[in-house]
Amino acid sequence: MQAVSDGARWMVRLVEGERLPDVFVEFARAHGIRAAAVPMGIGQLTQVRLAFWNGTEYVPREIPTPVELVSLSGSIGEAEGEPSVHLHATVGLADHSTVGGHLVSGTVGLLVESLVETFPGRAFPRPFDESVGLRRLELGGTG
Amino acid sequence: MQAVSDGARWMVRLVEGERLPDVFVEFARAHGIRAAAVPMGIGQLTQVRLAFWNGTEYVPREIPTPVELVSLSGSIGEAEGEPSVHLHATVGLADHSTVGGHLVSGTVGLLVESLVETFPGRAFPRPFDESVGLRRLELGGTG
Amino acid sequence: MQAVSDGARWMVRLVEGERLPDVFVEFARAHGIRAAAVPMGIGQLTQVRLAFWNGTEYVPREIPTPVELVSLSGSIGEAEGEPSVHLHATVGLADHSTVGGHLVSGTVGLLVESLVETFPGRAFPRPFDESVGLRRLELGGTG
Repeated sequence: MQAVSDGARWMVRLVEGERLPDVFVEFARAHGIRAAAVPMGIGQLTQVRLAFWNGTEYVPREIPTPVELVSLSGSIGEAEGEPSVHLHATVGLADHSTVGGHLVSGTVGLLVESLVETFPGRAFPRPFDESVGLRRLELGGTG
Repeated sequence: MQAVSDGARWMVRLVEGERLPDVFVEFARAHGIRAAAVPMGIGQLTQVRLAFWNGTEYVPREIPTPVELVSLSGSIGEAEGEPSVHLHATVGLADHSTVGGHLVSGTVGLLVESLVETFPGRAFPRPFDESVGLRRLELGGTG
Repeated sequence: MQAVSDGARWMVRLVEGERLPDVFVEFARAHGIRAAAVPMGIGQLTQVRLAFWNGTEYVPREIPTPVELVSLSGSIGEAEGEPSVHLHATVGLADHSTVGGHLVSGTVGLLVESLVETFPGRAFPRPFDESVGLRRLELGGTG
């Protein structure tokens, strides 16, 4: 992973074998990012697990073959003092059809390029909400 | 709806039962936003109506069950003195297939998180173009 | 093509008949942009060619009918002294299904609106990597 910034805006470059979302956790930790949005990510994933929330649990779908990462969207917050990353993705298959959902995990293939827009001085908490069984982003006060 | 900003960049949090695109109209009105892009939105929608422009009219598709909001993209301009919001979305269904198009309406489920990038001091007009039967964004002068 | 900026953030408006990705090359050249991300693009394309990288070559799919541009993501770098644009897209068809991949080319229909986030003073090189047969974005030093 490499990253360059212009103020609060970061361009991130992920290389073969790196894992999503873990590499965004490392990125956030390395740069002290506690509040951010991920509006863009493209490239190739060689393995991806997407999931659909059915109201009780995430129903996963594993795609073990290379796919085009067509859209990547998400946020970086904080949970229990550690970066908390939540990502959704659309991927393009060999027949150009698309599959999408919550990105549980993905392995970078040739490259992934991503834009991260941070909110310096803020922290977005992501507490676990027992009533729904999920962590949910809050916008917090100024951290 | 909650929103926090870092200069021209806003993070928006929508909660259960709020309606798209209306809640972005309220957001724009509350903060005097007359020119913006919406590059990111993720979360869950419990009801969504997408549409395809066939050259004459929008052909709708209603999805009455919860879906993953996988991508949300759009713009905020101004029409007849009011905020004008145009959104496109990709949603992930229970079988992880995706459906996409113009987002006519959607109801927020567990949460929607969205990034909005504004252009302070500008207004993007969205006049109705009778030749095509649609409103189309212009970039305007500095407002 | 029209474009307005607020610092490093640009809103771009493409009109009927303009071609992607060429028009982003012209945009980058006109404004001296050597490093940028494209996190948002919506509108209509009347013709689009998407492709899937199968490890050896891009397998194309041509869609000769109008489609909704549902997501547009990419980056602007530099290759051999010229702007180098790489885009991925999801498009919505008449039946609201979606197709996605590397955007080889597309012709703008009624309108395309796009957000471009630049990194002033930087250049992202996109050298050809013979080992994989593709150009790959690097983040460079400060240009």
